[in-house]
Amino acid sequence: MFDVFGTVVDWRTSIIQECEDFGKHRNLDIDWSKFVDEWRAGYRPAIDAIRLEGARWRVLDDVHREILLELLNRYSILLSDSEIEHLNKSWHRLHPWKDSVNGLIELNKMFITATLSNGNMSLLTNMAKFARLPWTCILSAELFKHYKPDPETYTEAASVLGLNIDEVMMVASHKMDILAAKECGLVTAYINRPYEFGDYFTEFDQIEESIDYWAPDIESLAEQLRNK
Amino acid sequence: MFDVFGTVVDWRTSIIQECEDFGKHRNLDIDWSKFVDEWRAGYRPAIDAIRLEGARWRVLDDVHREILLELLNRYSILLSDSEIEHLNKSWHRLHPWKDSVNGLIELNKMFITATLSNGNMSLLTNMAKFARLPWTCILSAELFKHYKPDPETYTEAASVLGLNIDEVMMVASHKMDILAAKECGLVTAYINRPYEFGDYFTEFDQIEESIDYWAPDIESLAEQLRNK
Repeated sequence: MFDVFGTVVDWRTSIIQECEDFGKHRNLDIDWSKFVDEWRAGYRPAIDAIRLEGARWRVLDDVHREILLELLNRYSILLSDSEIEHLNKSWHRLHPWKDSVNGLIELNKMFITATLSNGNMSLLTNMAKFARLPWTCILSAELFKHYKPDPETYTEAASVLGLNIDEVMMVASHKMDILAAKECGLVTAYINRPYEFGDYFTEFDQIEESIDYWAPDIESLAEQLRNK
Repeated sequence: MFDVFGTVVDWRTSIIQECEDFGKHRNLDIDWSKFVDEWRAGYRPAIDAIRLEGARWRVLDDVHREILLELLNRYSILLSDSEIEHLNKSWHRLHPWKDSVNGLIELNKMFITATLSNGNMSLLTNMAKFARLPWTCILSAELFKHYKPDPETYTEAASVLGLNIDEVMMVASHKMDILAAKECGLVTAYINRPYEFGDYFTEFDQIEESIDYWAPDIESLAEQLRNK
């Protein structure tokens, strides 16, 4: 099971490109990298409010839209409903890292591959189509009404696949995801994506105890598992 | 969205083969075609008891197991738990009709393809892997706690994909599925599978009003949609 944003797709470069194209088209002079970083920065607090503070359940598309509306307001950008929808749906059109598709093809020769993302089902399905990600099946926090890193997300995903928790590997490029999955009893694989947030940054050492596999990309993970 | 049993996979031939192999291995002298037809005959009443008579929700694997246990008892066949599990899981190992995989590959060039089956998520996921069915995503009655032909199954499946109901096509080889989908406002395609139940039997005329497309197989449906 794969985390998607950052682990499989390069959301930041993709969204900045979408926003820049849109800004050019609309003649808007905005620092779009900053805009996108602020958009993403709104994600974790909104999800945690749902997870921990009893805020009502919303799918990620709705969370993204709420943050976007606030940002547009702050930047004094006035858009039509369909323009807002177009920008918000750019999260459905994310490009994979260059190893992701081939890595999944290799893994599919040995395993079932699934998403386990906080993205909603339609977002993940449209993205699978757009980015040609050959998942065996798509699983989302939406199905369990629990966002990662709630333990229910991991345990119910294993359960819906009819698998014991230790028969499932969580693949992610974020410490939070890895630690929560490990806590639940899943096997863990860390993919190092040092450019997810722009500048080089690496989160996890190869020697950390909570990771069972450490790989620079998904193709390399497939190779490690093939040679096991 | 595809119905799966009968429409995409030849469940009857597959299960009979699994049972015959098992019977040979165990030296059981049983008319397995009759056994399998009785197994399948238990399906609709059990599903309808859940849909219409307030019987508690169970996933299809559990429904299959209940019917199997009753049958084994009736046939005086004594099996171990792991043998029962193996037989029951034969519903996860169904072979596609010969056009199904290529038909889906062609449809995937134009559309998102998804299951919409009464089979549970793990059954459909394992079957996708076994039969190499390249779904964009897997949707199941299990997600909506409504079995087809309850309207909720169709409407909630469209909703989870973020689509309007008339943007979705239901592909099925059964009148019941087609009529219920049509009633909900989906586009419908009927695939004629005259050998699903063994002897030649065809359910739907090409001229029936409730079908928008009529095709002898999935490759032909893809061709019709490509040339539209």
